[in-house]
Amino acid sequence: MEFRLIDRIRERTAQGREDVRLGIGDDAALVAPPAGQEVAIAIDTMVEGVHFPQGIAPADIGWKSLAVNLSDLAAMGATPSWALLALTLPRQPVEQVQSFIDGYAEGFAQLAQSYRLALIGGDTTRGMLTVSVAVHGFVPPGQALTRAGARAGDVVLVTGTLGDAAAGLRLLQAGARVAEGDGRAAYLIERLHRPTPRVKAGLALRGRATACIDVSDGLLADLGHVCEASALGAEIDASLLPRSSMLLGAFDETMTRDLALSGGDDYELCFTVPPSLVAEVQGDLARLGCGATRIGRMVEGTGVRVRDEQGQWLETTHRGWDHFA
Amino acid sequence: MEFRLIDRIRERTAQGREDVRLGIGDDAALVAPPAGQEVAIAIDTMVEGVHFPQGIAPADIGWKSLAVNLSDLAAMGATPSWALLALTLPRQPVEQVQSFIDGYAEGFAQLAQSYRLALIGGDTTRGMLTVSVAVHGFVPPGQALTRAGARAGDVVLVTGTLGDAAAGLRLLQAGARVAEGDGRAAYLIERLHRPTPRVKAGLALRGRATACIDVSDGLLADLGHVCEASALGAEIDASLLPRSSMLLGAFDETMTRDLALSGGDDYELCFTVPPSLVAEVQGDLARLGCGATRIGRMVEGTGVRVRDEQGQWLETTHRGWDHFA
Repeated sequence: MEFRLIDRIRERTAQGREDVRLGIGDDAALVAPPAGQEVAIAIDTMVEGVHFPQGIAPADIGWKSLAVNLSDLAAMGATPSWALLALTLPRQPVEQVQSFIDGYAEGFAQLAQSYRLALIGGDTTRGMLTVSVAVHGFVPPGQALTRAGARAGDVVLVTGTLGDAAAGLRLLQAGARVAEGDGRAAYLIERLHRPTPRVKAGLALRGRATACIDVSDGLLADLGHVCEASALGAEIDASLLPRSSMLLGAFDETMTRDLALSGGDDYELCFTVPPSLVAEVQGDLARLGCGATRIGRMVEGTGVRVRDEQGQWLETTHRGWDHFA
Repeated sequence: MEFRLIDRIRERTAQGREDVRLGIGDDAALVAPPAGQEVAIAIDTMVEGVHFPQGIAPADIGWKSLAVNLSDLAAMGATPSWALLALTLPRQPVEQVQSFIDGYAEGFAQLAQSYRLALIGGDTTRGMLTVSVAVHGFVPPGQALTRAGARAGDVVLVTGTLGDAAAGLRLLQAGARVAEGDGRAAYLIERLHRPTPRVKAGLALRGRATACIDVSDGLLADLGHVCEASALGAEIDASLLPRSSMLLGAFDETMTRDLALSGGDDYELCFTVPPSLVAEVQGDLARLGCGATRIGRMVEGTGVRVRDEQGQWLETTHRGWDHFA
C-alpha cells in the first residue's frame, strides 16, 4: 500500500536534484549536504478538524502542509532542499484514497517546484487525516536567523499583511459562500488555504535581521516568543499594522485590528533590524514583492505591549486576545 | 502548549552533540553534517489501534516509535544522529497529557542514549494518538546498503530470530495475561513492544552485504522488496528460519514457521552476501551479539519461494500468507 501511494506522490513531485543520491523507495533516503553549510530542519503536523476544516480541497492541504514548513525555513533564512511526508488517511475506498493523494500531490508539487524542493521520503498509514511534513534547508554557518538576537531599540517589522487568514477562517466558519465575483471573500480564504511562505524574504534578511519568526499563532504570540528568546519587550502601534484592503473592506476597524494582532496562519515574517538598516531592508523586500512594514520597536522589559490609535495601551494578555484563544 | 510539552521531552532526551548548533525551541533546528558524509533520512508513523494496541505503556510507544526508525537506518548501514518528533495526542486533562509525555520521553530516551541520538525538533498537536518520528544518520558516500544490489548466488541471511513479535501480538490479542514467572509470554511481548534495532549489525555489513532490508512487514514481504529492487528471485528453506526457544515453546511447528515467514515487527535485518563472505560476516555479527542465520539464496527469476522441511515448495502469495494479511 505504502509504496504505491507514495509512488503516486513521487511521480507528481519529482525534482532533479543532484544532492539526492537515493529518493523514495528504500528504507531511507540518501542525500549529500553541501560542504560547509548548516542544515535547518523543521517538522509540522496538520490534523483535519484542528488545523483545517473538513471538506477542504486535497490540493489545498498539499500546498498548506508544505507551506507552513517552508515558512519555518524562511524564518531561519534557509534555502529549502528536501522534504519527507507522513500521511495518515482514513480507511476508505481505494478510488477515494487515490483521488485524495493525487490532489494532495498536485498542491504539494505546485509549491515545491518554486523551490526545487524534492520529496525524498514518505510513509502512509491508516487513521485520522493527519499530515506531518519534515523539511530541510541550507544556511551558511552562523548566518541563520533565530528568535534570540533582537536588541533594545531594534525596529520591529512584518512582511505582507496580517489578519487575512484568520478573516478567511471566520468567513468559512460563518458559512460564507464565496459568491461568483466576490473577490474579497475569495482572497481572504485563499490566504488561509494557500499561504505564501516568505522564503526569499528570509534569505534577504540574513546578516541584517537580528531576530526573526514566522507568524503562525498570531503576531502577539509570535512576537512574544522573540521577546522571550531575546530577553526583551516589544511595543507596537496598532495603527501601523499592515492590513489588506480586502480585510479592511470585510470587517470593522476594531475587528481587523484584533485579527491582525491575534489571528494566526498568516505565515508572514516578523523580524527586527537596527534602525539604520530599516530603509535598505524595506527597499529590498519591496523588490521581492512582499513589502515590509515597521510596526514598533524592541524595548527593555518583557512582553508585547500594543498602543491604540489614541496612544493608549491596549489590554492584551501575553498570549494574545482571549476571544481568539 | 507545544513548547512546554516538547520541553518536557527535551529535558529527558538531552544529548550533548557538537553537531547540533540549535536544538528544540526555534522555528527550525540547525545541524552541521560531517564533511564528506551522506545523510540517510527516514520517517515512520505509528497510530494507536493500527500499529500498537490501546493501553500500551507510553514508555513502550516512545521506545518503539524510535526503534522502527533506527531500524530503517540500520538497514542502510547508517550511524544515527538526530531525530524529530511529531506527536498528536487526544484532548484530555493536562495531568494525563503530561504523564503520557513523561512516559513517552523515558522510553524514547532509553533507546536514544545508546546511540547518542539527539532529539532536535518536535511538534505536538491534538488529534488521535499518532507518532511520527524522522531520523537522520551518516554513511560514507557510496557505502549505504540498499535493497537493490543482490546478485544471483548470493546467500540470504537474517539477524536474530523471526516471528517473536507477531507471536507476542497474538498472545496480546488472545487476551493472554502475562502471569508472574511466565518468562515465555513476557519475552515475546517484550520483543513486540521493545524491538532492538540492529544498528551495529548494519554498520558491520557495510562493504560486504550486497542488499539489506529490515523485517518490518514480515520476511516474505520484505525479502520480496529486495527481489524486486534487485530484479531477482529468492529461495528459502523453512527449516532454516531462526526461531527462538520461546517461540518454539509457545506454538506448534507450522504456526512458528508461518509467524517467522510472515509476522511483521521483528525489525531484524535480512541481507544478502556473496558465499565467500558468509562465514566472516556471521563471525562478526556473532561478536556483536545478534548472530545471523543463512536461510536461502538469491536466484534468477522473481519472487520469494519457500521450501518446506520435506523439500516441497510451499504455496505462498507474493505478499505473504493470506491469513496474516
